[in-house]
Amino acid sequence: MVDSRKVSRRQFVTSAMSVAAISSLPAQPGLAGISRASSPAAMMQQAAVALTDSPGWKDQGIENLAKSPHAKLHDIPVRAVTIPSGFWAGRREINVTKSIPTMHDLLEANGRMNNFRRLVGKNNAAQIGPVYSDSDIYKWTEAVGFVLQSGDRPELRAMTRKMIDEVVAVQEPSGYLNTYYVGDRSSDRMTPETQSTGHELYCIGHMLQGAIAYYRGTGDRTLLDAGIRFVNDFLIPNYGAAPKKPIVSGHPEIELALIELYRITGDKRQLELAGYILHGDERAKFPERRTIYMFSGTPFTARTKLQGHAVRAMYACCGATDYYLETGDPAYWKTLTALWQDLSQRQMYISGGVGARAEGEAFGEAYELPNARAYGESCAAIGNMMWNWRMLAADGEAKHADIIERALYNGINSGMSLEGTLYCYRNPLAFDPSGGDKIRNQWYDTTCCPPNLERTFASLPGYFYSTSSDGIYVHLYNDSELSWHLENGTGLRVTQKTNYPWDGRVDLTVAPAQPSDFTFYLRIPGWAEGAQVSVNNKAVAGAKPGEYVPIQRTWSSGDVIRLRMEMPPQVIQANPRVTDDAGRVAVQRGPLVYCLEELDQPQGVSLINVALDLGDTPSDKFQSQLQTDLLGGVVVLRHTGRAYENDASANVLYSGYSGIQTKSRRLPLTFIPYYAWANRQATSMQVWTPVYKA
Amino acid sequence: MVDSRKVSRRQFVTSAMSVAAISSLPAQPGLAGISRASSPAAMMQQAAVALTDSPGWKDQGIENLAKSPHAKLHDIPVRAVTIPSGFWAGRREINVTKSIPTMHDLLEANGRMNNFRRLVGKNNAAQIGPVYSDSDIYKWTEAVGFVLQSGDRPELRAMTRKMIDEVVAVQEPSGYLNTYYVGDRSSDRMTPETQSTGHELYCIGHMLQGAIAYYRGTGDRTLLDAGIRFVNDFLIPNYGAAPKKPIVSGHPEIELALIELYRITGDKRQLELAGYILHGDERAKFPERRTIYMFSGTPFTARTKLQGHAVRAMYACCGATDYYLETGDPAYWKTLTALWQDLSQRQMYISGGVGARAEGEAFGEAYELPNARAYGESCAAIGNMMWNWRMLAADGEAKHADIIERALYNGINSGMSLEGTLYCYRNPLAFDPSGGDKIRNQWYDTTCCPPNLERTFASLPGYFYSTSSDGIYVHLYNDSELSWHLENGTGLRVTQKTNYPWDGRVDLTVAPAQPSDFTFYLRIPGWAEGAQVSVNNKAVAGAKPGEYVPIQRTWSSGDVIRLRMEMPPQVIQANPRVTDDAGRVAVQRGPLVYCLEELDQPQGVSLINVALDLGDTPSDKFQSQLQTDLLGGVVVLRHTGRAYENDASANVLYSGYSGIQTKSRRLPLTFIPYYAWANRQATSMQVWTPVYKA
Repeated sequence: MVDSRKVSRRQFVTSAMSVAAISSLPAQPGLAGISRASSPAAMMQQAAVALTDSPGWKDQGIENLAKSPHAKLHDIPVRAVTIPSGFWAGRREINVTKSIPTMHDLLEANGRMNNFRRLVGKNNAAQIGPVYSDSDIYKWTEAVGFVLQSGDRPELRAMTRKMIDEVVAVQEPSGYLNTYYVGDRSSDRMTPETQSTGHELYCIGHMLQGAIAYYRGTGDRTLLDAGIRFVNDFLIPNYGAAPKKPIVSGHPEIELALIELYRITGDKRQLELAGYILHGDERAKFPERRTIYMFSGTPFTARTKLQGHAVRAMYACCGATDYYLETGDPAYWKTLTALWQDLSQRQMYISGGVGARAEGEAFGEAYELPNARAYGESCAAIGNMMWNWRMLAADGEAKHADIIERALYNGINSGMSLEGTLYCYRNPLAFDPSGGDKIRNQWYDTTCCPPNLERTFASLPGYFYSTSSDGIYVHLYNDSELSWHLENGTGLRVTQKTNYPWDGRVDLTVAPAQPSDFTFYLRIPGWAEGAQVSVNNKAVAGAKPGEYVPIQRTWSSGDVIRLRMEMPPQVIQANPRVTDDAGRVAVQRGPLVYCLEELDQPQGVSLINVALDLGDTPSDKFQSQLQTDLLGGVVVLRHTGRAYENDASANVLYSGYSGIQTKSRRLPLTFIPYYAWANRQATSMQVWTPVYKA
Repeated sequence: MVDSRKVSRRQFVTSAMSVAAISSLPAQPGLAGISRASSPAAMMQQAAVALTDSPGWKDQGIENLAKSPHAKLHDIPVRAVTIPSGFWAGRREINVTKSIPTMHDLLEANGRMNNFRRLVGKNNAAQIGPVYSDSDIYKWTEAVGFVLQSGDRPELRAMTRKMIDEVVAVQEPSGYLNTYYVGDRSSDRMTPETQSTGHELYCIGHMLQGAIAYYRGTGDRTLLDAGIRFVNDFLIPNYGAAPKKPIVSGHPEIELALIELYRITGDKRQLELAGYILHGDERAKFPERRTIYMFSGTPFTARTKLQGHAVRAMYACCGATDYYLETGDPAYWKTLTALWQDLSQRQMYISGGVGARAEGEAFGEAYELPNARAYGESCAAIGNMMWNWRMLAADGEAKHADIIERALYNGINSGMSLEGTLYCYRNPLAFDPSGGDKIRNQWYDTTCCPPNLERTFASLPGYFYSTSSDGIYVHLYNDSELSWHLENGTGLRVTQKTNYPWDGRVDLTVAPAQPSDFTFYLRIPGWAEGAQVSVNNKAVAGAKPGEYVPIQRTWSSGDVIRLRMEMPPQVIQANPRVTDDAGRVAVQRGPLVYCLEELDQPQGVSLINVALDLGDTPSDKFQSQLQTDLLGGVVVLRHTGRAYENDASANVLYSGYSGIQTKSRRLPLTFIPYYAWANRQATSMQVWTPVYKA
């Protein structure tokens, strides 16, 4: 998604001037026609497509991989896991009670629903917002859909159902549905330029995701049927391989949505259309610059590195992995693993954020990971998590869960304020408030990140476990209760008791419906050196960081798995090719990346003059302290540092080398979890701190 | 200027597709019309504008500041200084005997002159090359013009005069002259879009600069008159403040050319037009992104920092300084000094190169100075030198001469191979050949840098001295002979004897026509701590690095100034806000920045694992050695370093901190001057080397 404040938007999006021009036009004859033909009543009369989904909607996970032939792991339903207390319970409660409702009001206040209403004559307002404004509604709907999967919220459901009715009322008889390409702009529909920049398919992709989540939350097919009509009536008959009209996704999103739709309808044409788009047959139509930026329009399997717009790249990788899960195409797997290597070895921030450059909201070159300039869009970190979730389903490798956890706790979690009403678009790893950048905002005209964060937190229970043919995998730790079944149908409850991520002790009580022989795959996070595992107080061997320890036995109700992970603060260095982190270290404790905020340091000390004095035995010297009154309750880390007395903020660009030893004085440094930064008054922040050389 | 291989070109320049489309058209009716009306004969009959320039063409410098009211210093003619031997003599000889002739052949081979010939029916070829291709010819003409200012080269002069005839033959009766916007493209002339991206005025700016240099080299007005016709007949009557049509420069260049033209013609309308363009009245017509990139189209005096396309920004600053030199407008001076602070404190490479980003060939943010990714276009470094030359004329401050010297010896000098036939477009400060980038090339389709380098080396004698009302300034040191006069008319010869930049001893023999009381301003470079000055063996006090030491006395023929500068290798650190240089140092000796090339280091050692072991007393431990057989003769620096044994090139992005002390072994490191890099086989290079921590 494109930040409206950024240059890239002006470049690719129909300009504000055109919007203004449209708004001054008299009532458009086309609009009345639309409203007549597409009244809800007319729509209802159309025969609904029979769904062949199995299991039924209540039992479908974030992805319904039950019948995906190349999925090693299978999602469990969101509703199968409850999170009654602990770290994520509070965050999720705020998401439902504050973030989602206030975002609804802001979407209304910013005309996102009026865009639909005006097309059925309910107002005479002009279209408001960027070309992709419909997607804001759909992403918000998806957030609600996931909320409802965790339990009914009648008010929220009713409010959303009303919005869905207003959305489907706008659908044209052809199946087309978009509030921007109407009236005079109808002739621009699905032209190569519009496909490239107009976000029509991006919007429909999010509509499908929203529809599917709402369906899985309620069984209500209204929006889903509208999505099916768009795909089956408008898209499939007209677009695709010759002799049909060509198609490009422009902003990847439709691919993963089409495949998830296929997992409900069983209609293979939807999968094939996704494959056609991923194959990028339209590569000849766009200059290379555009296909790089779009991460589409050229064969996915010809990619060798992550480049271009980061969110586009991540969503494309999601779609391609979904395609692999259904087809097993080895060329896709080869590309996906190569891109994943590029991600994890060269292009990912320690926060799990991706996208180094503000210009084009893009990936940079290998090892280009600037901190203050980091873009790290919230949506891109979410895309990273979504992609790794799919990769994990494909190969069951814990390295993907490590990235999911890293992104979730840090680069995603940072995106929403602790109060739940302010959002980051950028998530830099260093910050200087003197530039005047208000890093957290209630609203962005391109408001992709806020509802994206909301849907992610709402869907979180669905990421805790997966099943496999031989047992169950646990990926995430938090107080929680799983109530589900093994793939052979045996009922299974798992209760987690833990104060994770503040503490590394996790007790899992396993309760199959009857004694049962299966493997419990317990994730040992990559950071958890020396983790100890026991079952019923009997040690289990084989726990290795960054792997699942398989515990195969006959499980009976009341069996207790004890996972014990030490959580010493860890001092992390980056590959020396990351020049922006040279001579610097980051601090991590458990899954949490830490940072310094200037306001926590002794008064008068500027972060730019500060170094961490590690002495000889780095991590021993940290003091960890749970501060329940700070930032919603966090473990704070303290360590000796140094403040250089020669002010490093001087205005000289180049000067004679002053030697390794420069005058400094000792001072205590206080680190807070990165996700909690920028929740107090504006102050400098940094994740990577120079090491003091004694 | 835009690198044709880069994305920015596709964005702003009429695409290759359009060119191809044009080429397939039948003969265009418009062309014949042009050739009829604009035959050389017809042109000759037009009355030439009377020139009011004073002094005459032979006595004009790079800029003719003789009558510029706000110039503190005044240029001396290029021909007033001869450079018989030493560092620049060889470089300039290669420039004249190899670079300029081979570039002529390449310009021909790549159709640059055929673009002119086809318009008078001499061939049926299609227009070849990017939209700004005419400027290649003009910049090359300027190089020849400067060569001829140092002495006649009849063959070169004849060849160039022939080209000039072919150029002026194409000029239309209106005064318009451009080989791209002809035929079907005539209707695109000077539209807002074409002004913004079409480089029409950029081409004419270079035409005027070429014409002026050729005029000053030969007294030949042919091309100059064509330029005057374009400006006076086509531009001034039709474009400017309302009710005329609006104008924007798009790629600044016309501004400085118009003002230099005014300095010859005395036609104030030319100065006023430059002022109108600099004032950027057309700001409302372009989105902010475009005005940032163009560094034009918005009031110059509203700028607060360097941004956008680096060459555009530098040329705009040149034009604005020229405008200040003529008008003394304090708003301009305020902006210029603010931008200069930004340049020198936040945005300049140690090489004098500018423009951190390949994307948009642009300035980055403050302190964004990546090394391997550095763009540092040769043209931008030249623009930096040109701008500082103008700033120096305005205030006489040696800090500008320091930047001129830094850019000239390093970031400009690196742009041309030692053989004189290969050119850098980018001048990065670190390089890894495994990417396959051929850093030096004979030809670029956007061939702005090669003739720009050629004109710079050809004009070099003009940068050695300036006069002021009270005496003379010396800026650059090299074996040379000045034969000129003080501003009061007293003849003056100055002979420099030195082996600069390899040695810091300079003897200047001063010979006024008669004993004369004036001030000799001797530049003490910023790096020259402890420089000693004497006149006739009597010490002169007051020599400070980065200042001119004023030596006021009655000078008589045979007086000898002795300047003695120690040249210990200096270890330089960058402001800690330059994160890319954190923990690293650069080595400089005299004006030369040094670098490591991997092929000079012990076999099997990878630069990425190397650190400089400075011990306690950095510079004492360097060994300097003149190697006459290496790279055309260079002083090589050697110092103890370390090679880390843990291979830093491993594929792990983040890992546990391994402590400051990592296993390493001693080895000798060999540094060569940066300008000479990439003149042997492909190998890794870096300017900034990590400091070993014992």
